[in-house]
Amino acid sequence: MVFDWFLEHTKTQINYMKQERNQNIEKLIEMVKDVRVCMLITSEENTENLSGRPMSISKIDDDGTMWFFTKASSYKVEEIEESKKVSIATINESSNNYLMIHGMATLVNDKNKMKELWSSIMKAWFPLGLDDPDMTLIKVTPNEVNYWDSSSSKMVVLFNMLKAIVTGKEYAEGEHGKISL
Amino acid sequence: MVFDWFLEHTKTQINYMKQERNQNIEKLIEMVKDVRVCMLITSEENTENLSGRPMSISKIDDDGTMWFFTKASSYKVEEIEESKKVSIATINESSNNYLMIHGMATLVNDKNKMKELWSSIMKAWFPLGLDDPDMTLIKVTPNEVNYWDSSSSKMVVLFNMLKAIVTGKEYAEGEHGKISL
Repeated sequence: MVFDWFLEHTKTQINYMKQERNQNIEKLIEMVKDVRVCMLITSEENTENLSGRPMSISKIDDDGTMWFFTKASSYKVEEIEESKKVSIATINESSNNYLMIHGMATLVNDKNKMKELWSSIMKAWFPLGLDDPDMTLIKVTPNEVNYWDSSSSKMVVLFNMLKAIVTGKEYAEGEHGKISL
Repeated sequence: MVFDWFLEHTKTQINYMKQERNQNIEKLIEMVKDVRVCMLITSEENTENLSGRPMSISKIDDDGTMWFFTKASSYKVEEIEESKKVSIATINESSNNYLMIHGMATLVNDKNKMKELWSSIMKAWFPLGLDDPDMTLIKVTPNEVNYWDSSSSKMVVLFNMLKAIVTGKEYAEGEHGKISL
């Protein structure tokens, strides 16, 4: 029956999309896990002015959500209150991995979540620990991820670059992809 | 005479500003010179959509101007034609230096300038060399530079962080400054 076929086809399509989404998120997690410091980019509302600051990624969840600790009184919190669109840039020269992540930021003032994400290294920024009243979480849900990835080691890439120079063939800059989440 | 005094005072002020500007640019050049790959961030006109891609900095001039080679047919060139405001993010984890540079981009299609900036490593992206018709330069004139700099070595920074953890005093994250050019 046509209806049955249509239902089956739709199920297959949805499963395929789910599978692709899972693979994309796995790729994202794999690339983020070596990143200690990223640049978190926010923008002022009604202007095109961007601002960025280095931030340490506290955690990336299995669904790609990223978590950051920040001072509640900081300017970036004000900016996020005004405009939720943020970007995250990562540069990992040693593994030749680069990410440009676009997503939506939410401020999460949940002590239980803070407790879950807390690590003693955060004491460097929050000496009062979890009792610090000037502490909040930024949760970033990515909706677009651009990556430049060379799974080959730096040396191999250099070799490839040299090969391109010698042979006159264009250097394949490694995989460049856009992940839709 | 009052006029003489005023003239002298203005001269002193201008000299002081010049000196400060030169020191700021020196600081910028010093921080950029170890950076091989930065993230060049452009924006679509009339939307707040950003895009970023890793780019190799070909040169930084004595006045802070930064130069990049790019394919004339690339999307970023289109974006720069529409909106000249760009940002440059650098992440140097090993020296604990981070820069967020905001500036104006210009497309420079000058073969002499290309010749001046050319290095054989560029053949990896332009196997045809300087004869490649699909080549242009992006010139970025910075007008605001935010930096996070720790001139102490990574180990010392780690020690400072640990000290902060132990003593309960807040970790001084190193110098953070905003340079106006």
